[in-house]
Amino acid sequence: MPSVDICFSPELLPLYRLEGKVAVVVDILRATSSIVTALAAGVTDIVPCSELDECRAWAAAGYLTAAERDGRQAEGFDLGNSPFGYLDGVLPVRGRGVAITTTNGTRALHLSLAADAVIIGAFLNLAAVAEFVRAQNKDVVVVCAGWKGMFNLEDTVFGGALAERLAADFDTASSDATLAALHLWQQAKPDLADYLLASAHVRRLNSLEANQDFEYCVQLDTHSVLPIWREGRLVVNA
Amino acid sequence: MPSVDICFSPELLPLYRLEGKVAVVVDILRATSSIVTALAAGVTDIVPCSELDECRAWAAAGYLTAAERDGRQAEGFDLGNSPFGYLDGVLPVRGRGVAITTTNGTRALHLSLAADAVIIGAFLNLAAVAEFVRAQNKDVVVVCAGWKGMFNLEDTVFGGALAERLAADFDTASSDATLAALHLWQQAKPDLADYLLASAHVRRLNSLEANQDFEYCVQLDTHSVLPIWREGRLVVNA
Repeated sequence: MPSVDICFSPELLPLYRLEGKVAVVVDILRATSSIVTALAAGVTDIVPCSELDECRAWAAAGYLTAAERDGRQAEGFDLGNSPFGYLDGVLPVRGRGVAITTTNGTRALHLSLAADAVIIGAFLNLAAVAEFVRAQNKDVVVVCAGWKGMFNLEDTVFGGALAERLAADFDTASSDATLAALHLWQQAKPDLADYLLASAHVRRLNSLEANQDFEYCVQLDTHSVLPIWREGRLVVNA
Repeated sequence: MPSVDICFSPELLPLYRLEGKVAVVVDILRATSSIVTALAAGVTDIVPCSELDECRAWAAAGYLTAAERDGRQAEGFDLGNSPFGYLDGVLPVRGRGVAITTTNGTRALHLSLAADAVIIGAFLNLAAVAEFVRAQNKDVVVVCAGWKGMFNLEDTVFGGALAERLAADFDTASSDATLAALHLWQQAKPDLADYLLASAHVRRLNSLEANQDFEYCVQLDTHSVLPIWREGRLVVNA
């Protein structure tokens, strides 16, 4: 029976062997929620970049550019890290590619590329993630982006929610990290938004825009799109 | 108001600034539970060693030697990592020093020495730890030894138990790690042994000796001794 494990920080990823496994990269607030939203809104492909300059350079290739540093949109870029950038209609995104760089999410993604398959998870597309992982029938590691390398609650609770969905067909009891995430998800599940409102990261995002983003990112199963890593970019799995 | 933070793995410790803070090193199964037990049984001082050879060399200075690798007593040493080694009367320990090396606990301790004060925590001496930390009135970081760098449940739940004891006088809500540990402790508290029996590490220790150790290590507030780091060794805080 394949197993579910959860890596609470990219800093711990060297301890996990990703070869032969599926990696689910998660950065609920807000990178992976935005990526799901962007692809669902008709963006053709997403190129994750580590540096602002690398991201900016993609504009010459016709890409929109999205950049966030320390929770804010970086100057001189088309978009920040808010999913509403792809929804508000100000900027037509359908049929465009987007180059994106974020504080934590991009790093987690790049460190996960040793896996057989690398997909993007968010509460928004939880069902699609669970369906893909179940069909692969391989060990899965949830890679939490965390906050500057530190544990965070929202990515962990996502890991618990995914483990619950997989529990019938996967071993969810061999890893203490998975057990802890499942227990935290049990507490969070009755009112996810309320539960996460207590978290440190959520309080860091304390602004009108951020509150709107937060309410959006804690919705479950609203998008059926599954972003997957193919040839250097994220595209819709088809 | 000083804060409580929890570091889930020695691998994450470089992200924490320990200067000016109190570090509580915890390796419930079994290193720190054994250290508390040893000092309570009259051991004069404990020298933590990284390597087996370094540990063995202390025998020439009249020290007892204790070594564990992968959960088992290493060959050629006086003691393993079981707290009962200090209790069963087979080996007289009162008035002796002990050189000790363990898989995870020694590493966590050595990485914590930048802190203003480094103390040893276990469920056995939880009240003594809380009293010391409260009197210091400084930020505290619980350093979980984990299992080969991975998150484990028993050290984390100890962090939650300590945070609960400190909650009236310390900020326990600014760190997601502390919030998660508090939530897990709330679930574990009604029956700590039963809760931890589900954990991966506990199942690894599945033997008669290990079961006896486990039942012993999950007792709360049975020892008033507080091991503290002074001049290269652990002694009773006085």
